[in-house]
Amino acid sequence: MSESAHGSDVQSVGTTADYDLETQEWVINTPTPADRKDWIGNAAAHGRAAAVFAQLIVGGENHGVHAFVVPIRGDDGEPLDRIRIEDSGHKLGLNGVDNGRLYFDSVRVPRENLLDRYGLVTEEGEYSSPIENPTARFFTMLGTLVQGRVSVGGAGLSVAKVAVTTAIRCGNLRRQFGPPGGGEEVLLLDYRAHQRRLLPLLARTYAMHFKQAELVERLDLVFGGEDEDPDARRLLETAAAGFKAAATWHAVECLQTGREACGGMGYLSPGGFAARKADAEIFTTFEGDNTVLLQLVAKSLLTGYREEFGELNPIGMAGFIASRVIERFVERTAARELWGRIWDELTPNSEEDGDLKHREYQLALFAWREDHVLASAARRLKRGIDEGYDPFEVFNACQDHVLVAARAHVDTQILEAFAHGVEECDDEGSREVLSRLCDLHALSTIEKHRGWYQEHGRISSTRSKAVIRNVNRPCEELRPHAGNLVEALRVPDSVLPEFGPTPTAFLR
Amino acid sequence: MSESAHGSDVQSVGTTADYDLETQEWVINTPTPADRKDWIGNAAAHGRAAAVFAQLIVGGENHGVHAFVVPIRGDDGEPLDRIRIEDSGHKLGLNGVDNGRLYFDSVRVPRENLLDRYGLVTEEGEYSSPIENPTARFFTMLGTLVQGRVSVGGAGLSVAKVAVTTAIRCGNLRRQFGPPGGGEEVLLLDYRAHQRRLLPLLARTYAMHFKQAELVERLDLVFGGEDEDPDARRLLETAAAGFKAAATWHAVECLQTGREACGGMGYLSPGGFAARKADAEIFTTFEGDNTVLLQLVAKSLLTGYREEFGELNPIGMAGFIASRVIERFVERTAARELWGRIWDELTPNSEEDGDLKHREYQLALFAWREDHVLASAARRLKRGIDEGYDPFEVFNACQDHVLVAARAHVDTQILEAFAHGVEECDDEGSREVLSRLCDLHALSTIEKHRGWYQEHGRISSTRSKAVIRNVNRPCEELRPHAGNLVEALRVPDSVLPEFGPTPTAFLR
Repeated sequence: MSESAHGSDVQSVGTTADYDLETQEWVINTPTPADRKDWIGNAAAHGRAAAVFAQLIVGGENHGVHAFVVPIRGDDGEPLDRIRIEDSGHKLGLNGVDNGRLYFDSVRVPRENLLDRYGLVTEEGEYSSPIENPTARFFTMLGTLVQGRVSVGGAGLSVAKVAVTTAIRCGNLRRQFGPPGGGEEVLLLDYRAHQRRLLPLLARTYAMHFKQAELVERLDLVFGGEDEDPDARRLLETAAAGFKAAATWHAVECLQTGREACGGMGYLSPGGFAARKADAEIFTTFEGDNTVLLQLVAKSLLTGYREEFGELNPIGMAGFIASRVIERFVERTAARELWGRIWDELTPNSEEDGDLKHREYQLALFAWREDHVLASAARRLKRGIDEGYDPFEVFNACQDHVLVAARAHVDTQILEAFAHGVEECDDEGSREVLSRLCDLHALSTIEKHRGWYQEHGRISSTRSKAVIRNVNRPCEELRPHAGNLVEALRVPDSVLPEFGPTPTAFLR
Repeated sequence: MSESAHGSDVQSVGTTADYDLETQEWVINTPTPADRKDWIGNAAAHGRAAAVFAQLIVGGENHGVHAFVVPIRGDDGEPLDRIRIEDSGHKLGLNGVDNGRLYFDSVRVPRENLLDRYGLVTEEGEYSSPIENPTARFFTMLGTLVQGRVSVGGAGLSVAKVAVTTAIRCGNLRRQFGPPGGGEEVLLLDYRAHQRRLLPLLARTYAMHFKQAELVERLDLVFGGEDEDPDARRLLETAAAGFKAAATWHAVECLQTGREACGGMGYLSPGGFAARKADAEIFTTFEGDNTVLLQLVAKSLLTGYREEFGELNPIGMAGFIASRVIERFVERTAARELWGRIWDELTPNSEEDGDLKHREYQLALFAWREDHVLASAARRLKRGIDEGYDPFEVFNACQDHVLVAARAHVDTQILEAFAHGVEECDDEGSREVLSRLCDLHALSTIEKHRGWYQEHGRISSTRSKAVIRNVNRPCEELRPHAGNLVEALRVPDSVLPEFGPTPTAFLR
């Protein structure tokens, strides 16, 4: 799919597939070196055939990007005639994957090699597709990427689990500095700063664990054919895109903070951070660059998952958005309706800390932020269009705003999954600890955005300080459970460094 | 210096140097495996002698950590008798440095091998030191680390320069996606989100460039013997510690964001991010762990650079702090005095954006934050002590607060250096661009802390939104200068990947 000049913008790939009516063959071409296929997994050394995404052209008319099966190597493993193959080069990590480049010089494949679920060409060169709108057709084809995205998000989450487990185990064994005047040295994890670095990451890892489980279940329903509602599929695509971005950035953060929390020991290869940092580094930009994916999420939200942003007249879209936002409020869950009714009682003048621990209140703060950022982004877009500015310029000026809306949406989804997971927990003792962990996750996220909440009058300056106190508190309360909480993540010992009674045992 | 069980807490190293009165020798010992010297540069393969930090013991009395010259290898390159040497192991990066471990089994060296500038032992075993207080003596010895810290901070800054230069050059060449309906594809750096990711990092890199230049100059004055004032030395140590933390974390951020901004191309080894990410990774924790260094900065601030925190009675310290804070206001520069006088006129009710561009106002916001966080941390410490809590528990509960104070201090120092650099610029056109870059740096930092500023009534919610607008604006205005601004950083072409008219030229 990817080409050197077109990574994120797959719709504009340069590779062409021209239908030759006489021989009933496709002629695959790489028009310029920038149009070469790049980063293709297994292409450099081993691949025998490729699914090549190319502009489908019949009689000079371009029907957009479609996939073609193209043999690239013979039984002897040598590249076939008219196909040039290169290695993409040495990489920061994942060098066990032989990413390669493919150049096609009028390579011919039979008509049947078009993968024709969404677009068919007859022997006579007549094109037809079950999906009329070319953009909708293209995005439907791209929909298969959802499986890869759920997988990469899951891989990111796994890496995060390993990183926080390693760092918290280490912080539970490694001592440094004693109280002034002597006394036993202090475990790293007993330092407030260390708790503040690691425990919110642990909480977020748990939150994502529940979201990932939900995504996999939905993936099974949709791709297993049990849920054929196209809306369900679009919702899944959006959720997978958003979660992939969140989980892979979370992985990078856990690896970085975890490595630093382990100090020099984290820098040693046997500590595991070296290989994981290298391999997981690309997660944030492959299978869809995270920023581009968040933009897709925002587009889905702005259009109510119903249409493709690219094809929408921005003026029409802006109008649509307004109604959509109202509609979304109606669709709110019971908890959110409750929030709507009791909001004025709770805020902004209530300065008690207590309700910061109410899950409904936390969810309401998340939901309110998502709705507000999305609605205000929509209003800005509409205003720009109304004032006659170039639609692309308008969108670009609001790009950051739109990305914040997407992040806020993903945050809400993740908190909801965690809250649901807490409710489902049968064991009362575990549920209580999980619930505090969920508090920590919710409140440390609200803490990050407390500038925004104050700007929008949703929390007062006094309550904002209370939020900080209410991040410190669960850190303290969860400290004794930290060991059990990482064990419950069930990271196999085989992927963890050895820990023992002395820090030296960390070093195999 | 470092041992496996004592990295940050050098004062507690386990290695001992017992004075043998009969032979007038030092007997160097590694009491347990955890006390082995670790991470020692050049020790694993090549080093012939080491400066070994050990507890100096005479007749059973421990005089604290001192440095001893200990030969470790003979002319044949083999470890000497009673010395065991191991490689510290394979690392995430910097594998060209043969970090090693040293174990001493009653290794004997002559009395003269004590490096005795700060502590002397006569033939008869009488200890004397020009510095009475053992903690003060220890920290004076550690003062030599300042040179290493200025160097590592500088290395971090250099890495940051390479990373932002690479990413901005790439963003100025690489195009992706066009406006809906066709038209030329858009340069990555023309996207608002891309500007927002990279330009504040460029601005902060410039800010640090000016601070680093100032530090090197002061290092030269102090270590060149031109400024022998002990306060000047302590100030330099604090500045070096704070800058080292800020610059190395900045390097990590620039490498991560820069790599992501270059997408898959940034993942290729020839792009340069691979090696730099690996090597610079350890910067944040070696030559002093960043968190520990920031704690040292806070301690210096809290004690007015005059005494060692460890030796201070915390109750006395808290009282001392209060007077110190008042004193600091008196010491303020003219700009800050001005701010003091005009503050009420400017805020919090002025909702005009204009003054956000006033350097004095920006500096005042930074200084006010620093003073306020420091003063409130001091008050919390004092209150905890007054209420009779264990001093270590009190400090630990405030640890995060204290670290924020240190960061705020470093931020102020860096902005002041940038502001000074702008003033010193002779060329009017350049000065104007630099000044906007300084605005971007100041306002994007204020934006990060806008939650805090609102909590403390220093900016209103309306003004907080204005801050965001005033980060967007210089991003837009500086966009056309981005290319020149990175060229002016003068990163040698030899350390940059090749860029050409097509993105493929990025890949050598």
